[in-house]
Amino acid sequence: MASTIPTISARYSLNAQLVKYLPIFSWLKTYSRLDFNGDLFAGIITAILLVPQGIAYAILAGLPAQMGLYASIIPTAVYALLGTSRALSVGPVSIAAIMVASALSLPEIKSLGDPGQSALILGAESGLIMLAMALTNMGSLVNFISHPVLAGFTSGAAILIILSQLPPLAGLAQPSCGIDINCYAGYVRGYNPETLSLGIISLAVLVFFGKPLTGLLKQMKTPLSLVTAISKCGPLAVIFLSTWAVTKLDLHGQHGLSIVGPVPSGFPPFAVDFLVWDKWRLLLPSAAFIGLIAYVESVAIAKVTANLRGEKIIPNQELTALGAANLATALTGGMPVAGGFSRTMVNFSAGARTQMAMLIAASLLGFAVVSCSSWFADIPKAALSAIIIIAVFRLVRIRNMIHTWNYDRGDGIAELVTLFGVLLFGIEQGIALGIVLTIASQLRKASHPHIAVLGRVPKTEHYRNVNRHSVETWHHLLLVRIDESLTFANINFVEDYLTDELTRQPNIRHVVLIFTSVSDIDTTALEALEAINQRIQASGKTLNIAEAKGPVMDKLRKTEFLEQLKPGKVFFRTEDAAKELG
Amino acid sequence: MASTIPTISARYSLNAQLVKYLPIFSWLKTYSRLDFNGDLFAGIITAILLVPQGIAYAILAGLPAQMGLYASIIPTAVYALLGTSRALSVGPVSIAAIMVASALSLPEIKSLGDPGQSALILGAESGLIMLAMALTNMGSLVNFISHPVLAGFTSGAAILIILSQLPPLAGLAQPSCGIDINCYAGYVRGYNPETLSLGIISLAVLVFFGKPLTGLLKQMKTPLSLVTAISKCGPLAVIFLSTWAVTKLDLHGQHGLSIVGPVPSGFPPFAVDFLVWDKWRLLLPSAAFIGLIAYVESVAIAKVTANLRGEKIIPNQELTALGAANLATALTGGMPVAGGFSRTMVNFSAGARTQMAMLIAASLLGFAVVSCSSWFADIPKAALSAIIIIAVFRLVRIRNMIHTWNYDRGDGIAELVTLFGVLLFGIEQGIALGIVLTIASQLRKASHPHIAVLGRVPKTEHYRNVNRHSVETWHHLLLVRIDESLTFANINFVEDYLTDELTRQPNIRHVVLIFTSVSDIDTTALEALEAINQRIQASGKTLNIAEAKGPVMDKLRKTEFLEQLKPGKVFFRTEDAAKELG
Repeated sequence: MASTIPTISARYSLNAQLVKYLPIFSWLKTYSRLDFNGDLFAGIITAILLVPQGIAYAILAGLPAQMGLYASIIPTAVYALLGTSRALSVGPVSIAAIMVASALSLPEIKSLGDPGQSALILGAESGLIMLAMALTNMGSLVNFISHPVLAGFTSGAAILIILSQLPPLAGLAQPSCGIDINCYAGYVRGYNPETLSLGIISLAVLVFFGKPLTGLLKQMKTPLSLVTAISKCGPLAVIFLSTWAVTKLDLHGQHGLSIVGPVPSGFPPFAVDFLVWDKWRLLLPSAAFIGLIAYVESVAIAKVTANLRGEKIIPNQELTALGAANLATALTGGMPVAGGFSRTMVNFSAGARTQMAMLIAASLLGFAVVSCSSWFADIPKAALSAIIIIAVFRLVRIRNMIHTWNYDRGDGIAELVTLFGVLLFGIEQGIALGIVLTIASQLRKASHPHIAVLGRVPKTEHYRNVNRHSVETWHHLLLVRIDESLTFANINFVEDYLTDELTRQPNIRHVVLIFTSVSDIDTTALEALEAINQRIQASGKTLNIAEAKGPVMDKLRKTEFLEQLKPGKVFFRTEDAAKELG
Repeated sequence: MASTIPTISARYSLNAQLVKYLPIFSWLKTYSRLDFNGDLFAGIITAILLVPQGIAYAILAGLPAQMGLYASIIPTAVYALLGTSRALSVGPVSIAAIMVASALSLPEIKSLGDPGQSALILGAESGLIMLAMALTNMGSLVNFISHPVLAGFTSGAAILIILSQLPPLAGLAQPSCGIDINCYAGYVRGYNPETLSLGIISLAVLVFFGKPLTGLLKQMKTPLSLVTAISKCGPLAVIFLSTWAVTKLDLHGQHGLSIVGPVPSGFPPFAVDFLVWDKWRLLLPSAAFIGLIAYVESVAIAKVTANLRGEKIIPNQELTALGAANLATALTGGMPVAGGFSRTMVNFSAGARTQMAMLIAASLLGFAVVSCSSWFADIPKAALSAIIIIAVFRLVRIRNMIHTWNYDRGDGIAELVTLFGVLLFGIEQGIALGIVLTIASQLRKASHPHIAVLGRVPKTEHYRNVNRHSVETWHHLLLVRIDESLTFANINFVEDYLTDELTRQPNIRHVVLIFTSVSDIDTTALEALEAINQRIQASGKTLNIAEAKGPVMDKLRKTEFLEQLKPGKVFFRTEDAAKELG
């Protein structure tokens, strides 16, 4: 019997395991009434934002409105259970939506029909990819998307989103003009006056709900929480007002203004009828990019709020949580999800203390789809376009780009290349271009190690870079310090450096390589060192080594290199080499 | 008038330019009778080797025999004019041949017909790729094929070549058994006894021409140059003997033994009728790999002989020379070319002093295709297979693999992965796998910078790693030295390191980052530092900086980071920080 009672340490480790895999338990035990008050308010505000965003982003992605709503229920709750961020609001986001739109517009995907099914596959695949990355601990691979590349990508995608929303805002038909400018002029003149008016009014209302309204309310000494609440109701207000106008004035029937159309009522269905192998294969690259971006953007957003509160985000657990959320969205008929920047900020500034806020928001969304779905049918698409435009406008960060350009020219170039890559070649091509550029520049840096020719600081046993200090040098002796481990990537640079130095100083008779910073020599570098030694000896000089670390010497002793070096020697200290050869 | 006479410096620089672009002029001016004697002998020996190799490698690639012979004439001469290696023998090689065979076996290429035309396109494309790389100075990109990956690739390709030559050696028909083992048994029993006998005798003769014959000749005190000459005639002897046997015994007509068949007589035709865009597009990836491998293998071989004589290989000029040679092979009806290891060694050890040897060999090959092509028709394919097997056998370097495995485990794994990649997934997939593995491990290394917690060496102002030296530390002060520039690739590691250290030592109040080795901070790293500072300040501690270099401080002054650090400070020396905060 006694054996069934867990010991304290076992219980402790069980607890630790639980918290590790279900981070919700890290706050649930100490959850207080005060926490709940904050979370309730934030949850309501975020839900108010989630309804218009869910519908708008689904339509941006080219999907039925309910797929955005469904994506705000179960996936949001799944992240709340598994995620390590206490404020991140996971659900439909603009960047993932445009990436889905881009994937769905591929001719080979279009030809297979049913965009909704394709979107489910994208969610499932990107979720599985994230879970696989979590299992194999590959979260750190995303370190190789630098911030400038990510910022360039986000700005480019936001510009593409805004451009994509101008036609629905003005009620323009899909153009098919090719390169005929006159045709485009006619196309633009074919705007729908009622749609455009409603779109512009929506934009104006949304702008008013920003700084003007909060400024006004603050002047009126309204309590801060109320200011937050009211100012975040802009999108909902636009939806209400514009839908009221549409029904009241019969703008849809009489003036051809586009509306969302019927949204099925009820809870998202659980289904696995999207296992169409052909589509899975074709959508794999797009799914990989969506998963990558969803993860990177979400972690970046989560870190912002975590830093403000001194909390810690665990990247690998985020991969698990976001992967599970995307798998959940596919199983419950939703579009791919990620952490949304504006929504997370609203949630945080509305006072959310834990993911309870998101559980509340998800419940409210569940309630909305069950009981209010008939209200959604008459929402005008132009109002949704206005909401999207205002939401993504702040993602185009021109000022940040100028800062980056001024701070680090290389980063500025990477940012611009990615931005224009997205605009000119497409979403996935742009980010791929940025990543390749980043890796190439990283490899370039790795192949240029720092190397210094050394001289002796007069009257000491210290040896320093001849270019930085006034030191003594020798006619026949060259002391070269290599400041990195020798690998296939940098040994050619070292070889060329030595050749140039020996051409410049033809009177050198002894070369000493100083290995203070060399902690490894790989096979390629060893073979190159053997060849360098051969060439140096062929010209009647000697190659020597000084200050090699223990492990490096152990490795070299297993080879014939030390034998080949003779009459070259291995010196313990640089001083010994200088005394004997100088 | 005076202005038309070049000054000495102008003439000198003209000369330097000439030598730079046409390296042949570096030796032509001082060319002596003695040089010619060596080159003549080496040229004849190499030509004797080129004839069977040319025919054999063309057939290995699945091409008509003459494409191997043509590839040994103009391309060899073009390299002789442009290359910086004095001993490299450029022409048909086994590895390029199997890569061509692999490309030609792609279903989409096969369906377009005429393998000869496809091979010309591969030569032209890989040549143009190499020339483009030379123009854009991208030769150093190939640093990212490490020696173990290259060795694994070569061994794998050699094993594939040997396997591919067993059926022609035994006169087996092409199998179409699928996975039916019994079928294979029947297939193997269907060998042609005459073909197999001739194949085995050929192998035996070739083995005899190796160590046994040279040992015998040395015992008989034969002059060394004669030993070299005789021992290298093995392939030609096998060709003579086996062709004689075929014609004498009518092995082709009566016993169905495969022969080369008619080879057109005359000089290679100059033609550009291979400009088929569809094929160019489909063959591009294969051509890129062939160009890459041709370049890397050729430079590796060229360096071996250059090191033995203290000469220098200029990688970028090699790209030009090999690119031009491959363009030339496409224009004159030959297969893709590269520097061959065994041929270069034969050329070198036969006494070649300059590329004159290769010009002589190319002329002899030209003579052979004009006057002897009718002799080639009856050469049995089994004899050629025997020549190929013996030639590539030494490329499977098991002992070298064991050395690499013992010397550096990571390199050993990379070598084995590439080897098995080639065997299991194919030639191009194998090398791609090796390169990706290499780059990934390089990126991994770049993301793990060396970081040390420092303490003070008692009674000095020196600060050293607490894990390596016995030093004084402080309760409230953490000194952390980061030994690399801070970039997007490694800043996450730094962040995690600091978090762990602060969790381990909760009583720390001040963190000092020591930037002695930090020569740059990129945008991503700066943003991460700002976030780290925010989190450290949120927990009531301070972040400080010490020993930042001038350029780093200049960059930081352009940002708000130094302002945000307060009350954290920037210290000039570590000593100052220790005095004030310790």
